[in-house]
Amino acid sequence: MIKPNVQLLLTGNELMTGDIVDSNSAMIAQQFKELGLEISRKITIADDINFLVEEINRLAKSADILIINGGLGPTIDDLTAQALAQTINVELVEHAEALKHLTAWCKKRGATLNKPNLKQTILPQGCDIIANRHGSAVGFKVNHLDCDIYCTPGVPSELQIMLNEQILPDIAKNIPDELITDVTRLQVFGLGESTLQKMVDEQLPDWPQNIELGFRAGMPLLEVKLTTTNQQAHAHKHIWQEKLSKLLGDHLIAKIENQPLSLAKHVLLQLSKHDLKITTAESCTGGLIASMITREAGASALFEAGFVTYSNTMKTKLLGVSEQLLNEHGAVSKAVVIAMAQGALARSSADLAIAVSGIAGPDGGSEDKPVGTVWIAWGDINNIKSVCLSMPLPRSYFQKYVACIGLDLIRRELIKSQEIPHYVIERQKK
Amino acid sequence: MIKPNVQLLLTGNELMTGDIVDSNSAMIAQQFKELGLEISRKITIADDINFLVEEINRLAKSADILIINGGLGPTIDDLTAQALAQTINVELVEHAEALKHLTAWCKKRGATLNKPNLKQTILPQGCDIIANRHGSAVGFKVNHLDCDIYCTPGVPSELQIMLNEQILPDIAKNIPDELITDVTRLQVFGLGESTLQKMVDEQLPDWPQNIELGFRAGMPLLEVKLTTTNQQAHAHKHIWQEKLSKLLGDHLIAKIENQPLSLAKHVLLQLSKHDLKITTAESCTGGLIASMITREAGASALFEAGFVTYSNTMKTKLLGVSEQLLNEHGAVSKAVVIAMAQGALARSSADLAIAVSGIAGPDGGSEDKPVGTVWIAWGDINNIKSVCLSMPLPRSYFQKYVACIGLDLIRRELIKSQEIPHYVIERQKK
Repeated sequence: MIKPNVQLLLTGNELMTGDIVDSNSAMIAQQFKELGLEISRKITIADDINFLVEEINRLAKSADILIINGGLGPTIDDLTAQALAQTINVELVEHAEALKHLTAWCKKRGATLNKPNLKQTILPQGCDIIANRHGSAVGFKVNHLDCDIYCTPGVPSELQIMLNEQILPDIAKNIPDELITDVTRLQVFGLGESTLQKMVDEQLPDWPQNIELGFRAGMPLLEVKLTTTNQQAHAHKHIWQEKLSKLLGDHLIAKIENQPLSLAKHVLLQLSKHDLKITTAESCTGGLIASMITREAGASALFEAGFVTYSNTMKTKLLGVSEQLLNEHGAVSKAVVIAMAQGALARSSADLAIAVSGIAGPDGGSEDKPVGTVWIAWGDINNIKSVCLSMPLPRSYFQKYVACIGLDLIRRELIKSQEIPHYVIERQKK
Repeated sequence: MIKPNVQLLLTGNELMTGDIVDSNSAMIAQQFKELGLEISRKITIADDINFLVEEINRLAKSADILIINGGLGPTIDDLTAQALAQTINVELVEHAEALKHLTAWCKKRGATLNKPNLKQTILPQGCDIIANRHGSAVGFKVNHLDCDIYCTPGVPSELQIMLNEQILPDIAKNIPDELITDVTRLQVFGLGESTLQKMVDEQLPDWPQNIELGFRAGMPLLEVKLTTTNQQAHAHKHIWQEKLSKLLGDHLIAKIENQPLSLAKHVLLQLSKHDLKITTAESCTGGLIASMITREAGASALFEAGFVTYSNTMKTKLLGVSEQLLNEHGAVSKAVVIAMAQGALARSSADLAIAVSGIAGPDGGSEDKPVGTVWIAWGDINNIKSVCLSMPLPRSYFQKYVACIGLDLIRRELIKSQEIPHYVIERQKK
């Protein structure tokens, strides 16, 4: 059996004006990829009945599956049902199932069933209704010229749930098992795509062709995908996943089960496991590490205080870093960053600290310590480690990367890693 | 004269897999809107020569202007030149102008002119070259079936500069002045789209039809656009812009000149103007305000220190908030948030402080102080104001919104505003 040809038709004036960026089609493509299917063509048009009829007709001729997204709503410019009825030459009629859904939906929200809403129950005669758990407009399906046409809502959350629960299972029924794709996702920090690819090429040269290795860069974490599309490949994937995990070492943060977690969340999970609290002493990251930690619900049990000490005076006043140390070594130095960590630990109830002092730029660099130089200290009061890295990056990127490295170094401490991370090997300053 | 019909053809495998979200087409649509032109249809396809030829032919029949984006690069899957040559039935030949550009480009980067690169000089015979200031691949233009076809690079920065400097001026030459669009952008904080629209409807009921009022929500700031498309409207726009500005009051942050500035940047500009320094004392925002301030280059001159005091103990220890106050009023109270601001001012060299204490959730609320309750204090040591707001929003949104309100309240203090902001009127708790 050959794979069905899937095409996509998006409708909505807002998609044409540039006021919103279309993220639905990427979501649809990703979901179909899990079934081993690709989207071969994607058409985007405004809410125009003539364009819609023209494109539905044309796409139905070349596609086996056509997903229409948008135009299901209650307003006059929502034209999908009308265009489809016109294309396949049937009447628009009220659908009992759609009316039942809409009545229940309104009742649940204490809303009145008004005329614009009722428009959403008037659909092409003979179509199959697709439930919408989140919104008022049901989806629907017809077959035209041997093409299965699925009409879906433009609201991303409604679309996603409809795809997952209704449409993909419906399509999967007709796809033989051996074409089904299986995707395993790994979360990685501190290795770039090209470095990782090179490591695999060199150290796992017999990586099997039927396990596709893919990457999705999402600063600061990289997502590594292992995709297999047949039973034989599924069966031996776990062996290669293990080999890859070993190769990644402690750069592997976790296997992604549902949604990926943030780096700060992984640190909080480890802190909670070991019943430890953390504090921060930040100069160049200016509160970003504290902010990343406290963005996570439940942080208050593990993080009581953080210090943002931008100036030398404040490093002395708030963290007790001696003036002599500052004068002798400068604020961006091993001695000072360790004193910052010590000061934060002494002044808070925390067991562990992250301290950073560096030059974020664009100004403030010197020949000796150029923009991008940063000292990071981390650990408990009896064991404070430190490292100096060179990261000449734009300011906001520098801050984000440094904050993530601080969190990763503490994570490595908590899992008792002995490994030297790749970013230290690459960027360490002596 | 009627407006030309503009259509768009995007090509690239990466656009079909869902691995990247297409932002180029929104950028193109926005740029064309400035000329008063809309995109009527947008086709996205993989790098497939047959699809490309089919679509170029079809679109050229119905469009006056066709923008092709992507497929100009050096690799084998970059097919735009080949597809276009095949469609219009001309040879692919080496273009001297393209070769000159590429040679200079390589020389500047110390790169060798290799065979894959040279592919970018082999273009349809008779096409006009469009300069590319940023990248190696030039764009090109042909006319086919009375349609002007512009081929552009997929790299966003290259596309943008080519549109701005070459393509739009070329197209504008043929559009009469009276069709040209003029856009004025205002940056607004603390008013939502619907509230603002209602204010205009009620208080400026004779708003002229030929000044289009548009919105672009970009949490936390709203962008308001005044678009005019003819000389008469351009001429009286400034009068209506002034009326609108008056209506917006101190919710108007600034007129956007080039790139919009962040709220923190506006605060820093005001601080610099008045030669004042600021500090932060954060509980529920956990360092986010400090982080927003220090994200801006030059913050170090105006911000020396910030305090993140999540627990009660730390509010006492680091900011000197008395235990009695905490026991009597609770951490989320007027007395405590004022004491936090006072403590931060006393311990830093700052003139102004922002302090926040609230319940970000999802846990920690009570009947008296439910999740979303937040006290904010701001001002100088002789004049600390405070307000309690109710913002039952998801945690990260709550934090971001509270941080922005803190910054806005200080901004209002600095511009000596007497106005009560809309978010206080809407969300104030007594």
